[in-house]
Amino acid sequence: MPKINRYVDISTVDREAKKDYIDRHSPFIECASTVKAGEKFAVTVRMGKEYTHPDDPDHYIRSISLFNKETLLAEATFAAGALGGAGQKGQAEVTFHVVPTGKQMELTAMSYCTKHGIWECDPVQVAVEE
Amino acid sequence: MPKINRYVDISTVDREAKKDYIDRHSPFIECASTVKAGEKFAVTVRMGKEYTHPDDPDHYIRSISLFNKETLLAEATFAAGALGGAGQKGQAEVTFHVVPTGKQMELTAMSYCTKHGIWECDPVQVAVEE
Amino acid sequence: MPKINRYVDISTVDREAKKDYIDRHSPFIECASTVKAGEKFAVTVRMGKEYTHPDDPDHYIRSISLFNKETLLAEATFAAGALGGAGQKGQAEVTFHVVPTGKQMELTAMSYCTKHGIWECDPVQVAVEE
Amino acid sequence: MPKINRYVDISTVDREAKKDYIDRHSPFIECASTVKAGEKFAVTVRMGKEYTHPDDPDHYIRSISLFNKETLLAEATFAAGALGGAGQKGQAEVTFHVVPTGKQMELTAMSYCTKHGIWECDPVQVAVEE
Repeated sequence: MPKINRYVDISTVDREAKKDYIDRHSPFIECASTVKAGEKFAVTVRMGKEYTHPDDPDHYIRSISLFNKETLLAEATFAAGALGGAGQKGQAEVTFHVVPTGKQMELTAMSYCTKHGIWECDPVQVAVEE
Repeated sequence: MPKINRYVDISTVDREAKKDYIDRHSPFIECASTVKAGEKFAVTVRMGKEYTHPDDPDHYIRSISLFNKETLLAEATFAAGALGGAGQKGQAEVTFHVVPTGKQMELTAMSYCTKHGIWECDPVQVAVEE
Repeated sequence: MPKINRYVDISTVDREAKKDYIDRHSPFIECASTVKAGEKFAVTVRMGKEYTHPDDPDHYIRSISLFNKETLLAEATFAAGALGGAGQKGQAEVTFHVVPTGKQMELTAMSYCTKHGIWECDPVQVAVEE
Repeated sequence: MPKINRYVDISTVDREAKKDYIDRHSPFIECASTVKAGEKFAVTVRMGKEYTHPDDPDHYIRSISLFNKETLLAEATFAAGALGGAGQKGQAEVTFHVVPTGKQMELTAMSYCTKHGIWECDPVQVAVEE
């Protein structure tokens, strides 16, 4: 059954290869911590902070989904090659533009690597102001 | 057979309702006209320039795809509600971050409205410099 | 962070409403237990065994994904209305046709309900014969 | 701008390579010509009738979508490898199970090959009986 891999703070990890493995497979969310009700805001999700991932036809980041709590907001699917293709490495990235609902959003990103399965970030809290 | 609706310059259109209909269903691409080979760049696709589209559960913009010539680079799928939900209107928007290939990219966006089908923008030329 | 809901044998559940809730949100896999290497076979995934799910625009089964261990094989995405639309109920269903790889497949289905999130079935073992 | 390739009766085509090219990229719909209102029925879409398509990581059938007139009913996305993987060939295939609406459905399938773009079949008429 597919494991949901979760981010581990790589400063607590010893082995360089493991730091790289965890970081390049983890989606990181960047967005404002406070947003205005009814106003579209940007949520960028980028794979990896310090490391890069292959963009090979048989090994690439296929998708990034954005959830607010249990609810899917949007999903991006990439073709192999969108980061330069075979032999190239990069950080898959998408910016979703969404309108906040409720008083507090809890954003999570899930991603899928065609070789190393499903990964999920820690939830990010976003306060919604009237 | 699903029609591929194409953008028509709305300044040539008389009826206000038709301007609105065409504009709010058309994907518009925003990106640099010249990019550097091997360097990730941002391609924003936004639905509508002057008008907004409903975000109702039974009538919303479900997806935006980005092509380079015949090749799909990435696709974003939205849930109804990502722009505020029932009764709200907005411009669905996504920013893809891709690495250029070749010497010239020809970007096109296709979108799908759950009531009014498939729409496509005019191709946008992007020069790729070494 | 989105919970991955897992099937619970509903014969062990007392409350009728809970049986219904669990069953109608759970993907069930139907396929041969032994297949031939290199020969395409059918894997049907159906939501619910004894109960049905709404197909309302704001509450429907949006997707069913099929995994072999950690690897995504295929995904089906449905539009609200594919099961009759507002006021109707049914069991979302898709049959994927895939070619087995390896000696043993471990199939899992994940599904997404627009109101009740992600659900996953127990893995199904499929022996692959030469 | 991505071309929508349409099926051409290959018995009218001379060159064997062109017959193969057209056939293996064309989605073919199989379903009953008359269905009962409110009753789920099966719609199989298979790529190619007489020829097979590669399932290589950089060249495979990525998706098959099913439309009723202008409306998307369902979409299947495949991973490279679902038909056996590198060096293998096959006919990507999915069976959607949908509930008819209206008195007459006009089904069309669109597919996407990662090397040869978008293809569409001729519409198939399905009568819906009370």
